[in-house]
Amino acid sequence: MVDKEQLKASFQQIQDDICMALAECDGKAGFQEDSWEREGGGGGRSRVIAEGDIFEKGGVNFSEVHGEVTVGLQKQLDTKAERFYATGVSIVIHPNHPRVPIIHMNVRYFELSDGVAWFGGGIDLTPHFINDEDAHFFHQALKKVCDQHSEVANYSKFKAWADDYFYLPHREETRGIGGVFYDHLGKNDQSAMDEIKAFTIDLAQQFAPVYTALVNKNRNLERTDADREWQLLRRGRYVEFNLVHDRGTRFGLVSNGRTESILMSLPNTANWAYQHETEEGSEEARTLSLLKKGIDWV
Amino acid sequence: MVDKEQLKASFQQIQDDICMALAECDGKAGFQEDSWEREGGGGGRSRVIAEGDIFEKGGVNFSEVHGEVTVGLQKQLDTKAERFYATGVSIVIHPNHPRVPIIHMNVRYFELSDGVAWFGGGIDLTPHFINDEDAHFFHQALKKVCDQHSEVANYSKFKAWADDYFYLPHREETRGIGGVFYDHLGKNDQSAMDEIKAFTIDLAQQFAPVYTALVNKNRNLERTDADREWQLLRRGRYVEFNLVHDRGTRFGLVSNGRTESILMSLPNTANWAYQHETEEGSEEARTLSLLKKGIDWV
Repeated sequence: MVDKEQLKASFQQIQDDICMALAECDGKAGFQEDSWEREGGGGGRSRVIAEGDIFEKGGVNFSEVHGEVTVGLQKQLDTKAERFYATGVSIVIHPNHPRVPIIHMNVRYFELSDGVAWFGGGIDLTPHFINDEDAHFFHQALKKVCDQHSEVANYSKFKAWADDYFYLPHREETRGIGGVFYDHLGKNDQSAMDEIKAFTIDLAQQFAPVYTALVNKNRNLERTDADREWQLLRRGRYVEFNLVHDRGTRFGLVSNGRTESILMSLPNTANWAYQHETEEGSEEARTLSLLKKGIDWV
Repeated sequence: MVDKEQLKASFQQIQDDICMALAECDGKAGFQEDSWEREGGGGGRSRVIAEGDIFEKGGVNFSEVHGEVTVGLQKQLDTKAERFYATGVSIVIHPNHPRVPIIHMNVRYFELSDGVAWFGGGIDLTPHFINDEDAHFFHQALKKVCDQHSEVANYSKFKAWADDYFYLPHREETRGIGGVFYDHLGKNDQSAMDEIKAFTIDLAQQFAPVYTALVNKNRNLERTDADREWQLLRRGRYVEFNLVHDRGTRFGLVSNGRTESILMSLPNTANWAYQHETEEGSEEARTLSLLKKGIDWV
């Protein structure tokens, strides 16, 4: 177990730092904050950016909640513990520019009343158009953080985990180019907890510099109406993943979480087309061909 | 059990009749058909209308599938039967005009290899702006069909069933003004099967006259940009219901159904806004106040 007050302060600091960096990067819009309390214990602060120069809709959420472990959750976690504590930071950013990727991050700490505790988290990137250089840069940055914490973090393993997790079986597509994902880390080895915490915080601190670099590299590229159309279709897939598959979203919705904070991950607008076909040899077709598990971007 | 060839012919006729009536009502767009086969048995014909004068996106699907009952389905249906047969017609129509409601219909017949069989179905209406006269007209028409088949259909019961089924707990809203919904009808009383079949077919045959009447009554009303904005937000809720809650959609996606046919129910474009607020006394606020279970529209 970790010092919860200290961890909470670290997570809130991460939220502050990321919001500041993103607002500065946007240059036009700032974050609106809503503090909320959870019936049953705890609460959070949701921060939303909208209609920015580059960020069309995005949320950077901090929460710290605690309460009774429901029977469903006991089953899911294979535990008899009666109470839980959870704190974390969740982010999804939808840019308005089709050449700037969507990004998601979540870092979280979970503790049960029987003393079992763990960290989970990850960062993954969803470009509307896959750019190999950007994909390499993104994965390289994540690998570096993992390598710096090699006692507890394994890039290859966490990368494969992200490929498996951010996957839409009904489309036979990964959500994007993946990233890293891990869960239940430290559950069976509490002695590693401090190192896992350090890894998790370092990973979260990479979010702002890595993402703003990708934003700034692409924000001035030309954008066509056709690019925008494709972006909206890709966002439709993002909605499908979040509402059909994402465990966090589904858990939040069925466990009476704060709907507006949970569904902050949805874009402000998304499209669906029946039987959409991409042109052979187009960038769209190339992107689809790269939405596969197991691609080595490093 | 019913004569499957005859039932299939009736369902295909229903699909034909409805497509013809909707295409005529639209006046500009027609239906595109895709026939498909299902690995494992059966297939269907999907018909899609798009970019019409009034129908922005819509699908009228017929399918007839059969195959092995998976372990998951055995559990869900509490059966040991090894094979199933299912046929049905599914419709979702998204109009471009905010004053014309979204509509959904599904009628289906399900049969297991142990001889257990049943009908299910329903029609429900999702106005972007609730109009009391239209709601009364719609429910009155459904009640009339039920009353004509009172041995097997009970409007009050099926109306309450629709209220419960088409409900978004995480929004504390019904999807729209409901309609009728029923399932497992005839499972325990095979002697009523012919009458249940007659009811199901009569219900489906009400779809076209009832919906085209609602379309024609409202299609020439004024439409503002604000109306359109609201329509897109209501469509966001429709997407949430279908991807998070709808059993048919979720069953189809996890059971390897034809994704493009299943997700035809999604609008071509939908919006989400964080913490959207409606103006007190506005039509939008009034609509929200009427998205409740148990309203007597007849």
